[in-house]
Amino acid sequence: MYKLVLIRHGESTWNLDNRFTGWTDVDLTPLGIEQAKNAGRLLKAEGYEFDVAYTSVLKRATRTLWHVLDEMDRTWLPVVNSWRLNERHYGALQGLNKAETAKQYGDAQVLAWRRSYDTPPPALEPTDPRSERADRRYARLSQDQVPLTECLKDTVARVMPFWYEALAPAIKAGKRVVVAAHGNSIRALVKYLDNISDDDIVGLNIPNGIPLVYELDENLKPIRHYYLGDAEAAAKAAAAVASQGKA
Amino acid sequence: MYKLVLIRHGESTWNLDNRFTGWTDVDLTPLGIEQAKNAGRLLKAEGYEFDVAYTSVLKRATRTLWHVLDEMDRTWLPVVNSWRLNERHYGALQGLNKAETAKQYGDAQVLAWRRSYDTPPPALEPTDPRSERADRRYARLSQDQVPLTECLKDTVARVMPFWYEALAPAIKAGKRVVVAAHGNSIRALVKYLDNISDDDIVGLNIPNGIPLVYELDENLKPIRHYYLGDAEAAAKAAAAVASQGKA
Repeated sequence: MYKLVLIRHGESTWNLDNRFTGWTDVDLTPLGIEQAKNAGRLLKAEGYEFDVAYTSVLKRATRTLWHVLDEMDRTWLPVVNSWRLNERHYGALQGLNKAETAKQYGDAQVLAWRRSYDTPPPALEPTDPRSERADRRYARLSQDQVPLTECLKDTVARVMPFWYEALAPAIKAGKRVVVAAHGNSIRALVKYLDNISDDDIVGLNIPNGIPLVYELDENLKPIRHYYLGDAEAAAKAAAAVASQGKA
Repeated sequence: MYKLVLIRHGESTWNLDNRFTGWTDVDLTPLGIEQAKNAGRLLKAEGYEFDVAYTSVLKRATRTLWHVLDEMDRTWLPVVNSWRLNERHYGALQGLNKAETAKQYGDAQVLAWRRSYDTPPPALEPTDPRSERADRRYARLSQDQVPLTECLKDTVARVMPFWYEALAPAIKAGKRVVVAAHGNSIRALVKYLDNISDDDIVGLNIPNGIPLVYELDENLKPIRHYYLGDAEAAAKAAAAVASQGKA
């Protein structure tokens, strides 16, 4: 039996400001740092060991991972950063306040952008200063691979090659894997693992900084999954995520 | 022309305690963290960019690198950790106070252990609790590869394969490389690059947390090298390293 541990980054400055973040590279808040350290302490207390760690190229996830590894005294583990684990791209909404966007467009439209499986928000112009097309960290990608907006379906399509080509082979090779990523890149993995429908995945919320453990059989099919630590705290944190888009 | 940047980690808790550290995995002091951040700020101010970063599996070097990358806003760069970049192993002296060891054995003996090219300090017993042979991070090495003591010559022999197999190919491939490592693993690289004799290398000191830049020609032969920032500060820091072993 294999174990896979997924961790959504701790609270970011734009989680706190209630702004759409997407690929914008904002940092953790002091609470986010504390959540990340706590995830590391939980994993250490429960005796978890890892052989390789994966994260996005966004600093809120990388820093979360660093704090986790630090608390586990495993700063020497190999870390692989991939853009495929980035948060869902939020298009022209990136940087806008969620509540104000909801006031302007109505709760229903914002909820559709946030939670419809296949309706992307308005796209950024490629020349928009918020676009990542000129960002050096994506320079090795073709321009088409750097999104201007994404619906969750697009995020799933972008994350899954990383499952097939990196995560699954590592797990099958017996490596104990931890992934520090984002609400929607983790959703993409969870949707695949638990075979969740397009309709149901949009109602599933991933709390910040709480390790989500998947036990997998020899074919990498889930046997069960659970959050480490206080289950009630995890449920509360997930509910808080769900309510962010309300005016 | 290529550039290679070498950075010795910031001050560690055992630098401060004046203890022989070697492969013992001690952390940075607050000053060491500040030195590391300052190295990052210097590199950023001077417009340095990197494509890949290398460090040891010891946290004082890894943490130094993390602070450097953080200050440069390059937390997404690939990082490779290798035991080959570790500090020289200090054998049975690991953990002992340098001044007390000098009182006990005399300055000359300690200087010989510290600075002779080919006289290793007394070896650790493999069963000594200070030995790293049971440490999971070295589990993939053969037991013979995990030293029980090293003279600088041994460190050079252990570091050089990493030059030939990792650093040099990366540089030749056009990657801009930064290495955050240790006094003696950096000495090993400097000895090779500048073709320094066995006698002379023992008098060369690498200051903590000051980027050392090598400009290399197309055959990776040095054109020149220099420390970034205040040259006087670098010389002073190097002198402070040299005086650590005195009773």
